[in-house]
Amino acid sequence: MRLRPAELAVLFLIGAAGGLVGDAGHVQAGTTAYIDDSLPFIWESALWFPLAVGLATASLAEIRLLLAPPRRGFEPLEGVGGIAAVIGIYALTAVVFEQAELPVVVLISMLAALVAVWLADGPALVCGALAAVGGPLVEIIVVEADLARYHESADSLFGVAIWLVPLYFAFGVVAARLGELAVARRLNRIR
Amino acid sequence: MRLRPAELAVLFLIGAAGGLVGDAGHVQAGTTAYIDDSLPFIWESALWFPLAVGLATASLAEIRLLLAPPRRGFEPLEGVGGIAAVIGIYALTAVVFEQAELPVVVLISMLAALVAVWLADGPALVCGALAAVGGPLVEIIVVEADLARYHESADSLFGVAIWLVPLYFAFGVVAARLGELAVARRLNRIR
Amino acid sequence: MRLRPAELAVLFLIGAAGGLVGDAGHVQAGTTAYIDDSLPFIWESALWFPLAVGLATASLAEIRLLLAPPRRGFEPLEGVGGIAAVIGIYALTAVVFEQAELPVVVLISMLAALVAVWLADGPALVCGALAAVGGPLVEIIVVEADLARYHESADSLFGVAIWLVPLYFAFGVVAARLGELAVARRLNRIR
Repeated sequence: MRLRPAELAVLFLIGAAGGLVGDAGHVQAGTTAYIDDSLPFIWESALWFPLAVGLATASLAEIRLLLAPPRRGFEPLEGVGGIAAVIGIYALTAVVFEQAELPVVVLISMLAALVAVWLADGPALVCGALAAVGGPLVEIIVVEADLARYHESADSLFGVAIWLVPLYFAFGVVAARLGELAVARRLNRIR
Repeated sequence: MRLRPAELAVLFLIGAAGGLVGDAGHVQAGTTAYIDDSLPFIWESALWFPLAVGLATASLAEIRLLLAPPRRGFEPLEGVGGIAAVIGIYALTAVVFEQAELPVVVLISMLAALVAVWLADGPALVCGALAAVGGPLVEIIVVEADLARYHESADSLFGVAIWLVPLYFAFGVVAARLGELAVARRLNRIR
Repeated sequence: MRLRPAELAVLFLIGAAGGLVGDAGHVQAGTTAYIDDSLPFIWESALWFPLAVGLATASLAEIRLLLAPPRRGFEPLEGVGGIAAVIGIYALTAVVFEQAELPVVVLISMLAALVAVWLADGPALVCGALAAVGGPLVEIIVVEADLARYHESADSLFGVAIWLVPLYFAFGVVAARLGELAVARRLNRIR
């Protein structure tokens, strides 16, 4: 059971749009800043950023379906809610990043845990873990390459924010759930 | 299926109490300030404000029931939870209004979306949309009339805060659900 | 139906760990400060604090089961979610404690109400009420004894924060639910 091109395209667009909105919040709040502005930009983001988030969204959804068949049942509202939850947590990081680091990291981690309790199965936790490792790693490389930087209140993890870990975890869990829902929608139509 | 006077009165009181608490938070935080203090006041609010919110609550509940019959099932805890969610979002706007505008608006919008995912059906979305248009419009008129003003961190929508739109949307969705629950409670008792 | 020593020990550890993380957030954010550092410390906390929270967690779980038999059904994810919700609210208080007091108190109260809507039955509300009275009372005594103090933005309730009341209420509700789940898990295994 794999995702079809049209489904992958929709997942890509959802991820790219979410990345665009979340990143604009970070830039406007001063959480992050792009250093190299020789690259093409879209809104507040270097173009590659929303493209990467869209690609990651579609990839994680596909990985979820490679790991195990989707759960039964088609709950489209869970997809909408999951997207809202991740974009909301993303925006929250831009609102609170200058506060004391430990409670901010704990807050974002507990919200990510609530998203997982709500939406994840085992394979979705794997997708969350992949995103929680891969996302911050890519961002560390971006910072190391002097393409962007994080505010000094949010740069304790090799130059990036520690709360990127739970934020990307929640993202991976929701991307996995969207993959399940895309297939469930199709099965639903067949029945 | 319409609401009875006693039900409308309870909805009015819930709305008025919520408006009173939320508005006091805004005034104490400096999010809003009343300019004209010649009118009668109650706690931190000009008396007309909680009255208007109470009236809007009862009206939106009634509109919900004019649009379509209530869904089956009586879940009184959804009513309590919906009220808590809207008053909580209202209070949150008073806590974060001085932070960067875009992520604050996105955060409040995503929370409103989660409330809708939880409680709304189609007609409730109509009530949410009515409130999302009507509420800010009335507040813009109030600001234009020099009766009150919003803090400069929260006045980008013709003098009022952009996040009033998702806040009122969540309010409309919950008022609609309260209308459903009022009738479901009655049907429940008859059976 | 009572809790077994191993179950009480697990509940104690969960509570102690949560208290430790939450308290470290408060100390690092400056919400609270220990004055007397002659006592043994663990991380940011005087040792007695996480021990007291662990003891309270196990006690409230036991009280829940003394009040009434547990509800049917074993939903371990509700336990994980409840723990995440309380630690998240705890961390949130450290993030927002310097904002205007009324909306902060309303926000924490509404989040506590949502936790109760999600997880509480009648006896759990009793546990929440016991914690909401007992927790702040103990903290007031601690402050009166000059062992610790709250920041001036968060000391309106006889020297401690008003939002301790809803925070402890949510804690009591979740401790009660954990007590139910511990027993439900055991019954589940027997069947």
